[in-house]
Amino acid sequence: MAGAERRTRMTPEERRKQLIALGVNALADRPLEEITIEFLASEAGVSRGLVFYYFNSKTGLHHELIQTARDSLMRATEPKPELPASQRLHDTLERFVGFARDHRQTFYSLVRGTASGDEDVRTIVEEVRSAQAERLSIMFHELGAEQTPRLQVALRAWVALAEQALVDGAVNHELTHDELVAFLERSCLAVVELAAHARG
Amino acid sequence: MAGAERRTRMTPEERRKQLIALGVNALADRPLEEITIEFLASEAGVSRGLVFYYFNSKTGLHHELIQTARDSLMRATEPKPELPASQRLHDTLERFVGFARDHRQTFYSLVRGTASGDEDVRTIVEEVRSAQAERLSIMFHELGAEQTPRLQVALRAWVALAEQALVDGAVNHELTHDELVAFLERSCLAVVELAAHARG
Repeated sequence: MAGAERRTRMTPEERRKQLIALGVNALADRPLEEITIEFLASEAGVSRGLVFYYFNSKTGLHHELIQTARDSLMRATEPKPELPASQRLHDTLERFVGFARDHRQTFYSLVRGTASGDEDVRTIVEEVRSAQAERLSIMFHELGAEQTPRLQVALRAWVALAEQALVDGAVNHELTHDELVAFLERSCLAVVELAAHARG
Repeated sequence: MAGAERRTRMTPEERRKQLIALGVNALADRPLEEITIEFLASEAGVSRGLVFYYFNSKTGLHHELIQTARDSLMRATEPKPELPASQRLHDTLERFVGFARDHRQTFYSLVRGTASGDEDVRTIVEEVRSAQAERLSIMFHELGAEQTPRLQVALRAWVALAEQALVDGAVNHELTHDELVAFLERSCLAVVELAAHARG
């Protein structure tokens, strides 16, 4: 789609970024496995060889796309330190639900990592879950929660709950945006409360 | 390990069952991907060709093992209708936590399905999650919960929470058996309660 005219003016870094952006955008509508070197070459209006030059293989391309998708999810859901701690969770969840709705396929690829049987993709998916749990841990620490192994288990488990709820509730449109945010917020608070008190 | 003497007496169906049982047992200590045709032939004291004859390929073997593991998880965690509905959840969760602890690698393979990049394995993993959510739905229906799309989303999400908590808490030994059962029971009740009342 980018004409030959622009092509000659791009630096390698710009071209690389353009290709990744096209790939991530395409991920909004189709699963990762459909985004091939050929597909991207055609979208960008460049040769197959050029796309190969940047990514080496479909696997290399998929790693870049998943990493970029991860970065954009992490940015989109970054807790805002300027908000009072008590509002920070709600605000973050609003954006989490929004991301899952607006970037359906990207989100699905990210939380499942199933579109590729690739171990590196699965590692990235694991990292997202851990990073989200860690952010929550910091947020709740500021709200006075004690940092215990039980809290860590509870928060990682809650992130898994949130991912599944977002896949079923937002991606498959079972629930409204507000219902999902409310469910996630209250379940998160409930789970943190349980981790603080349940002793078996 | 089974001697040549027994080998001649087994029917094909018995041999097949023996090989699957050996494979599932082996899964207690090692990831699915390490259970190859060669490994199983050596464990059973039979030829590689014989194992190939029953399963065709490593993929075929893995499907059988994962299906058998799924069946044994589903049996181990089947709600007991003879118990009062109010005790049935606790009893089921006791056995769920026990299964995850006693069959670590089997459980891990089952809930992640990551040891194989295979789509059929992932489908089975999805089915386990759906089947567990469906059982809970029936149990809570008997306890008076209204069957809504919100409850379905909540229960599937809770199963994802339980799987992650069991991987972190039982498989990695972060929490005691009783702590895990208590966390799962209370989080499940909390999530069902939220699904009944949270309207966003």
